[in-house]
Amino acid sequence: MSDLLESALNPQSVAVIGASENIHKIGGRPIYYMQRHGFRGRIYPINPARQEVQGLRSYESLAALPEVPDLALVIVGGDKAVAAVDECAARGVKSAVVIASGFGEAGAQGRAVQQAMADRARAAGMRLYGPNTQGLANFGNGAIAGFSTMFVEVPPADGPIGIVSQSGGMSAMAYGLLRGRGLGVRHVHATGNEADVTVSDLAWAVAHDPEVKLLLLYLETIANPGMLARTAAYARERDLPIVAVKAGRSESGQKAASSHTGSLANEDRAVDAFFKHHGIWRVRDPHAQALAAEAYLKGWRPEGRRLVVISNSGASCVMGADASEEFGLPLAELSPRTRQDVADRLPGFATASNPIDITAALLSNSGLFGDVLPAVAQDPAADLFFINIPVAGAGYDVEAFAADTARFEASTGKPVVVAAWQASVAAPFKARGIPTYGNESEALGVLAQLASHTALMRRPQRAWPAEALPPLPAGKGRFMNEAESLALLAARDIPVVVHRLCRSARQARDAWTAMGVPAVVKACSGDVPHKSEHGLVALHVRSADDAAALFEKQWTRLAELGASQDGVIVAAMHRGRHEFMVGARQDPVFGPVVVVGDGGKYVEALQDVAVLLPPFDSADVGAALRTLRIAPLLEGVRGEPPLDVAALCAVVVAVGRLIAAASGRIASIDVNPVLVGARGEGAMVLDALVERA
Amino acid sequence: MSDLLESALNPQSVAVIGASENIHKIGGRPIYYMQRHGFRGRIYPINPARQEVQGLRSYESLAALPEVPDLALVIVGGDKAVAAVDECAARGVKSAVVIASGFGEAGAQGRAVQQAMADRARAAGMRLYGPNTQGLANFGNGAIAGFSTMFVEVPPADGPIGIVSQSGGMSAMAYGLLRGRGLGVRHVHATGNEADVTVSDLAWAVAHDPEVKLLLLYLETIANPGMLARTAAYARERDLPIVAVKAGRSESGQKAASSHTGSLANEDRAVDAFFKHHGIWRVRDPHAQALAAEAYLKGWRPEGRRLVVISNSGASCVMGADASEEFGLPLAELSPRTRQDVADRLPGFATASNPIDITAALLSNSGLFGDVLPAVAQDPAADLFFINIPVAGAGYDVEAFAADTARFEASTGKPVVVAAWQASVAAPFKARGIPTYGNESEALGVLAQLASHTALMRRPQRAWPAEALPPLPAGKGRFMNEAESLALLAARDIPVVVHRLCRSARQARDAWTAMGVPAVVKACSGDVPHKSEHGLVALHVRSADDAAALFEKQWTRLAELGASQDGVIVAAMHRGRHEFMVGARQDPVFGPVVVVGDGGKYVEALQDVAVLLPPFDSADVGAALRTLRIAPLLEGVRGEPPLDVAALCAVVVAVGRLIAAASGRIASIDVNPVLVGARGEGAMVLDALVERA
Repeated sequence: MSDLLESALNPQSVAVIGASENIHKIGGRPIYYMQRHGFRGRIYPINPARQEVQGLRSYESLAALPEVPDLALVIVGGDKAVAAVDECAARGVKSAVVIASGFGEAGAQGRAVQQAMADRARAAGMRLYGPNTQGLANFGNGAIAGFSTMFVEVPPADGPIGIVSQSGGMSAMAYGLLRGRGLGVRHVHATGNEADVTVSDLAWAVAHDPEVKLLLLYLETIANPGMLARTAAYARERDLPIVAVKAGRSESGQKAASSHTGSLANEDRAVDAFFKHHGIWRVRDPHAQALAAEAYLKGWRPEGRRLVVISNSGASCVMGADASEEFGLPLAELSPRTRQDVADRLPGFATASNPIDITAALLSNSGLFGDVLPAVAQDPAADLFFINIPVAGAGYDVEAFAADTARFEASTGKPVVVAAWQASVAAPFKARGIPTYGNESEALGVLAQLASHTALMRRPQRAWPAEALPPLPAGKGRFMNEAESLALLAARDIPVVVHRLCRSARQARDAWTAMGVPAVVKACSGDVPHKSEHGLVALHVRSADDAAALFEKQWTRLAELGASQDGVIVAAMHRGRHEFMVGARQDPVFGPVVVVGDGGKYVEALQDVAVLLPPFDSADVGAALRTLRIAPLLEGVRGEPPLDVAALCAVVVAVGRLIAAASGRIASIDVNPVLVGARGEGAMVLDALVERA
Repeated sequence: MSDLLESALNPQSVAVIGASENIHKIGGRPIYYMQRHGFRGRIYPINPARQEVQGLRSYESLAALPEVPDLALVIVGGDKAVAAVDECAARGVKSAVVIASGFGEAGAQGRAVQQAMADRARAAGMRLYGPNTQGLANFGNGAIAGFSTMFVEVPPADGPIGIVSQSGGMSAMAYGLLRGRGLGVRHVHATGNEADVTVSDLAWAVAHDPEVKLLLLYLETIANPGMLARTAAYARERDLPIVAVKAGRSESGQKAASSHTGSLANEDRAVDAFFKHHGIWRVRDPHAQALAAEAYLKGWRPEGRRLVVISNSGASCVMGADASEEFGLPLAELSPRTRQDVADRLPGFATASNPIDITAALLSNSGLFGDVLPAVAQDPAADLFFINIPVAGAGYDVEAFAADTARFEASTGKPVVVAAWQASVAAPFKARGIPTYGNESEALGVLAQLASHTALMRRPQRAWPAEALPPLPAGKGRFMNEAESLALLAARDIPVVVHRLCRSARQARDAWTAMGVPAVVKACSGDVPHKSEHGLVALHVRSADDAAALFEKQWTRLAELGASQDGVIVAAMHRGRHEFMVGARQDPVFGPVVVVGDGGKYVEALQDVAVLLPPFDSADVGAALRTLRIAPLLEGVRGEPPLDVAALCAVVVAVGRLIAAASGRIASIDVNPVLVGARGEGAMVLDALVERA
């Protein structure tokens, strides 16, 4: 952890500028919390109107303190806040937490004031938290530089969870939900407007706390993706799962977010790809974060997704089978031996296949649970276990079921979760540390998340070697013309269509003759990136005369459009099995972003695409392709041969490496269509458009 | 309600065959429940070993009773159960509830015994409930012919909800969840194996209880769709919402269901269409049924879906905007006047657009809530209101917020729901009857369901006049040939491609000449329904000679295949904007089912389809088309004109009416592709295949 963050999360001395005697006021709460929750450093209330605050000596000013504090908590607002920050910076305070709002979130003027304040702090070597933040809280050492009322509502307990959030409300909510589930929470930090320190910075610091076993983030913008990526890499290394909420998913949400904190909206698919790439699991809200926490803390890292469902209700078995498909957790195919073992232990009318229906016979024989579980435990086909008890109560020995389940979990180490909505049924399981949920969707959602997130965290990290790109063709327009674009791809060993750039009707005639029928004739000009919209693409050209005539027509048309007459392309016309699109762009936040999807003219309308962030390899592209709606076509349907997916993957990797190598020179690459043939036939780029940076 | 059902749900006398003194035993519980919950009829315990059971005189046998009871509850198992049922039937008992399991769910032999028992009961005029059922319970009159332990776990209270379920476990679970939410439940009925009485029969009866305002169903099979449809029609008439769980959605689930109760698996898309058609809302499980119950019981029937989000957390506003898109509840565009009114009431840095961010200023001014709500109430753009309070506690006057919300709701009558996970925050709202949920997804899910279900219940019901279909072309094969199939469609005014059935090369030559280029030549044989797979379709035929040659080739090929040589079709070749598919089949459960979707060769692989049940009209088809993934193409993209959706809808309606009129004669109709042109250009069927019943 850097020293500067250390000064905020583990300060030896804290000044509270605007300290209050009233523990219900913002200026009173941090002092109250620190004294109450065991902070061992020195607390300096600053309040010129008082001699003493909450039993501590009160000081008139920062200057009056006996030392320069590590951390200053700025409670005062408006101009006074700015003045206090400046004084902290001048005096060598290491970190200042600015609670006051009315800065960046309040409009252009506030943004300017905030920026200037942060710039001065940075120049002085002080880190700034906020403004407009609920502050920081470390229950590992009692350093509570924050004012959340939630620490009164739900008493804190130190534990293995860290929360870092842009929003104070969401940090408090996650904290409260986790504590409500009986889980201990160490870090509860909010970054507010992020004039200096971001969620990513604090995530880095918290990830380095060895006691933290689960890191939860809430973001409205990813201000510092590089730092977040580094944090994620470090977290994967030490097997620390990160579960993030990124709000502002939708257009309306991004609008709301920008009025909330002035966030820069990131295209949501790129955000998804970023999280996925770095092994961060994304969920919709703090409820989902809290829901899965216990299962993560069990240390379960399932190797597979094959599920066993056990219930005392036949209907729950039916619904469990439905849900196994819904959540992508296929029912484990139990071995004949396991099935026989289970059947031997169950009454005759019970089902010994998976889902396992223990039936209401459980009512008369409480031992059934304990009998069945070991029989299943020995089957290697099972990765995950789900016990659903929709109905129990008087007459059921739930304590015995729970003890049997705990014994099962301890002996197998495999994930086992329970759904029981009756508090009396859930309690014995919870008491034994079995993650227990109110319903099947929650329970299976958590198992699915655990399995998927584990796979994501263990995904091999790829590396692309640094490489020097030869100079791009000279030109001052925004776009390279098609011939230049295709040549750039071809130079990277990407297969492009056979074509000639012609500058006379004669050349067009010769090119057609060389190509054979049918051919395509299309105008080539950096000024006309979208040729078809201007009638500048002719398909199925069936004679050399036609090609020559089309040259004249298109050449003239370019002149009419006032576009540069770079030439006319005559290209061979190909048929493949399917058209894909590959795109790449420099994202202002994430850098190179690559898109692959169903191609053709309806790319934008149907949006059947997947996003990848570099570096990635063919296996990653293949996995992305399998998420497309058209994925069934990849393997061949209706007697068709499978597509040459490997060739397509190679094109996608090559396009990704090109834009990564051309950082600062290429803004975007649009390759559409890429014609993909049957396996072994390869792929071929028919059209390309490169945009200069 | 029919008399027979009346005898079960409102019996004047109940015999319990296998009565027990022990109130924890299955034979003891019904008597205990009836005495405890105010049953005013006569209870006759039958237990030859006892003089008295639970304070009531015990009888040796059915014959010993002073009267023939309305209802007999058969607790004894196995052969004794069968004998008891037979005796009840012989003596004129009106209804028998058979608790015992080991019948239809236990295999072929059990099924046979169950069937014979039910047949004998039916012949005697007795209705049979079960076997393998938890029984019936009517808390309106205390007639509890069931043994669920849940009535001990969660004390009953009569109320406006009826539950009818195949599964005893699921009826108990729904009951328990509803009671846990403080809602009263009158009917809790389980039908088990449904040897006679089905969920649909009981739903019909319960729907006729005027006190019931919400009807919840759980089904694994729809055994009696006609009765369920009638029930739904009656329910719509009296504004009674029906919310159903249909388990066995997936293939694994259907497999599990068939081992559970021997259910006949219905194709799940048809199930969805059936529910939709009849205004029944489908949810995943009893949790979802219980979750939405309170909002239904408020009587809210929203006219629209435009949402207003109000929160004291900026982050919740961002997430609320995301969620509004996720749940299809667009944010209401508040009028400038409303926004000004709201802005006037909020502190400067708060947001006056929708979502409305009251900010933490609520902490210092508890009146903000009460100030803002009336300002929004007057705006006609708002249909639904969602108040999200992710964080509150000491210092917040939650009582005042709740009182203001209740006042708002009372004055507008518009749906308003709250999300608050802190029990202390939720309680004041709940106390005032405001539906309050643990999180945003639950709250908005309920609002979306309410809006969608209301629209579904109010959908105009269509009617198709009965019509006589002329005789189908004679033939004994399974399929009509293409020419016959096209002719059948054409006779129903469905536009089909211009074509000729040729029986000689000469005719093929003439036909080509009449058609012009390019044409299609394809073999026509009722024995070869899938022509392309045998190379029997030639596209782009460019000369009369080619047509003649193709005739010879295809004619010979038919002979080689041993198929009937019905002829060779020469058809005009058309281009349209998009290919659709229309299919229709006689479903063994639902009768005629119509499918429309993206057409072409990948229909099965990509499955972009919507299902409709007759009768429906063009508006219904249009709505179905808008659920397709290719829906964006309907309106025209990339400068293309919109498609002739009206023409496509007309084809779908005509195909639906054809299969409905041909019930018993046509098993299926496959129309693929239907070529649809730009608006005004019409639609045209290029190929059709009719399967005889």
